[in-house]
Amino acid sequence: MNSFVISGVKMFKPSGEVVTANIYVSGDKISKITQGEVAGANVIDGKNKFATPGLVNAHTHASMTLLRSYSDDKALMDWLQKDIWPIEDKMTRKDIYWGAALAAVEMIKSGTTAFADMYGPCMDEVAKVVDESGLRGSLSQGLIGIFDGDKRLVWNIELYKNFHGRADGRIQIMFGPHAIYTCPPDYLKKVVNEAAKLGAEIHMHMNETKTEIDDCIKNYGKRPFEVVAETGLLDLGFLAAHCVHLSDEEIEIIKAKKVRVAHNPGSNMKLASGICPVTKLLSKGVTVALGTDGASSNNNLDMLEEMRLAALLAKVDTLNPLAVPAAQALQMATENGAKALNLANVGRLEEGCKADIVLWDMCSVEWQPNYNPVSLLVYSANSSAADTVIVDGKILMQGRELKTLDEEKILAEFTACANRLTKN
Amino acid sequence: MNSFVISGVKMFKPSGEVVTANIYVSGDKISKITQGEVAGANVIDGKNKFATPGLVNAHTHASMTLLRSYSDDKALMDWLQKDIWPIEDKMTRKDIYWGAALAAVEMIKSGTTAFADMYGPCMDEVAKVVDESGLRGSLSQGLIGIFDGDKRLVWNIELYKNFHGRADGRIQIMFGPHAIYTCPPDYLKKVVNEAAKLGAEIHMHMNETKTEIDDCIKNYGKRPFEVVAETGLLDLGFLAAHCVHLSDEEIEIIKAKKVRVAHNPGSNMKLASGICPVTKLLSKGVTVALGTDGASSNNNLDMLEEMRLAALLAKVDTLNPLAVPAAQALQMATENGAKALNLANVGRLEEGCKADIVLWDMCSVEWQPNYNPVSLLVYSANSSAADTVIVDGKILMQGRELKTLDEEKILAEFTACANRLTKN
Repeated sequence: MNSFVISGVKMFKPSGEVVTANIYVSGDKISKITQGEVAGANVIDGKNKFATPGLVNAHTHASMTLLRSYSDDKALMDWLQKDIWPIEDKMTRKDIYWGAALAAVEMIKSGTTAFADMYGPCMDEVAKVVDESGLRGSLSQGLIGIFDGDKRLVWNIELYKNFHGRADGRIQIMFGPHAIYTCPPDYLKKVVNEAAKLGAEIHMHMNETKTEIDDCIKNYGKRPFEVVAETGLLDLGFLAAHCVHLSDEEIEIIKAKKVRVAHNPGSNMKLASGICPVTKLLSKGVTVALGTDGASSNNNLDMLEEMRLAALLAKVDTLNPLAVPAAQALQMATENGAKALNLANVGRLEEGCKADIVLWDMCSVEWQPNYNPVSLLVYSANSSAADTVIVDGKILMQGRELKTLDEEKILAEFTACANRLTKN
Repeated sequence: MNSFVISGVKMFKPSGEVVTANIYVSGDKISKITQGEVAGANVIDGKNKFATPGLVNAHTHASMTLLRSYSDDKALMDWLQKDIWPIEDKMTRKDIYWGAALAAVEMIKSGTTAFADMYGPCMDEVAKVVDESGLRGSLSQGLIGIFDGDKRLVWNIELYKNFHGRADGRIQIMFGPHAIYTCPPDYLKKVVNEAAKLGAEIHMHMNETKTEIDDCIKNYGKRPFEVVAETGLLDLGFLAAHCVHLSDEEIEIIKAKKVRVAHNPGSNMKLASGICPVTKLLSKGVTVALGTDGASSNNNLDMLEEMRLAALLAKVDTLNPLAVPAAQALQMATENGAKALNLANVGRLEEGCKADIVLWDMCSVEWQPNYNPVSLLVYSANSSAADTVIVDGKILMQGRELKTLDEEKILAEFTACANRLTKN
């Protein structure tokens, strides 16, 4: 059983305060948090380190790392139809695996400990990566109702049956209806039936672009959340990615149905989708988490950057420098992320919680002077400061050295996959 | 005389294209650029590196690193009056030096080779740091007309006489009238007189906040650029920081007077000032460069981040995913930066230009796959990828090891200054 103590470390408390403490880990849990001296074996020196809960990437498509920098600065439909989809059509089981494996390396090295993924087919390969890497993954099969919808639904059911709760509970399976423009209401009702039978939750793109809203109103006479609510999908536990364009009525639905929102500021800015009304949602008590979206639209899986963007974008959007202060951005990326993925006892550094911990190294110049580690992490640091990453009490990286994954091999296999996919 | 060649490196051309080339450096210049094999001594292996011109930080206050993370998430006037100004009042000559020295470390380590600085008193200490570090600095005394205005003007004149053109031309001195709300028109006319006698250019905060515009109209019946134009200040060569709130008439003045704009997206977002109309200015042919502003409002001096923010913010602001593509963001941070600081033959990798070069290491996962180094640098990398930094043909950092500055000593002295300033 894992048993160690991180001594004398500055620690981010659930309240948003920072204290110097000793964090004891036993098995998969934080067993106690103390002040004062620590002696004995199995001590990780926490000096000049900042301990935060592991970052939770609440919306991504891990294997899309394969398409990073392949196509940028394009109009959305040009980008998808001409560049992204033709390559995705060529992806094999092997590509899904190595794409997700590289994503796992990138996530661990930037302080992410859990992620919500939607892609596929072959999501079992992503499950394998979650198992091997030691990360937590909430995986869903991307369900496209208008193309092979029934087949994909079977894949999602199988994924659930084969993997939900596996790897000591680190793998969770959700159902992943892609979006209202690819999943008509009748299909969504099928998804509700199957997911409800299994008790599975839902992960879906919602209200990302203006076009999506306009088309939905044209086709169904209602806005997306209204259509989706009528199918019963929101009652299963619902993670909604993007939520850029929301009416006041939709915000009330989100609140009433306890929908969790994954805000993706980097992707929404880069694709010029618009700005999610984060402060409005937060003021209504909605759980707003943060996600990177896929690496082909972001272009990385760096949650530190996403925190910074969330804090900066909310301020300039509302013209209020007090909007989304640093501690709130960090809570969105940790505690809210865990809530968004429905991970029990994750996202908080306190006794009895899961030991999902990142130690950030505070030695480099951008951390000086060190008046406020939270401000420094959110506004100044870069993700290469992630020094030690712990999930379920297990050390996945220490001193930036990966403990569970073979970075060199993954890089080589990943590069071979990318080359094959993009060579004519 | 420095003489070496960077072999087989991917290189960002002034056109925005990327080619694999050998970059020969002789003395302070790029003497030639070739294709094919290179043999002989003094070869820097360019494999897996991306060569760009050094980044130019077109607006900062270097010594404000001392105030990083001291006060964040506050309303502007609370922040300035209660937290920032009282500490600044206590700053000594030594603080200015060590604050700027830490800034120099941070700039070199994140790929910046030149910066435009406005602060003071004791800007001669910043000049000393520029000299010792090997960076280029365009320095100006912050001139506050409404408080000790004449004394400060004398300081700026002395600064010019003692330092302009020194350190092999790496130090340039500008005049730094702080802003329209601290420098009334009569005072600006005095600045014009003195600067014109010396042939000095101007660096000034312009149109940063809505309040500044409203007050200017109330006091002078005109908008800031109209008031400043009448003083003659714009005719001397003018670097305008921020330019968030601009009327169409002011944009025409900017264009006609060839004003160079330093866009500070990070600071403008964090302080909720608003969004500079970058695409409009660029479409008029205005030189728009990028700046970080001081580390107390940003909170770092990371120009890679500023490029990314400039590209992302322009897209979401105009709802156009084609706005400020990656190559343009990189040009803003390099070639436009050099133009903004009026640095001759800087900011372009071509024969005869100054050898101000950054080699970015492309080995880490966020650079994979490597379809497009420009996209990767602007949208995915972080600044710890800066591996080698060259200014005027001299290597300031190689393999992330600083060659001109003693990082450890600077960190210790800087920390002592910060502690003294903020202890009651």
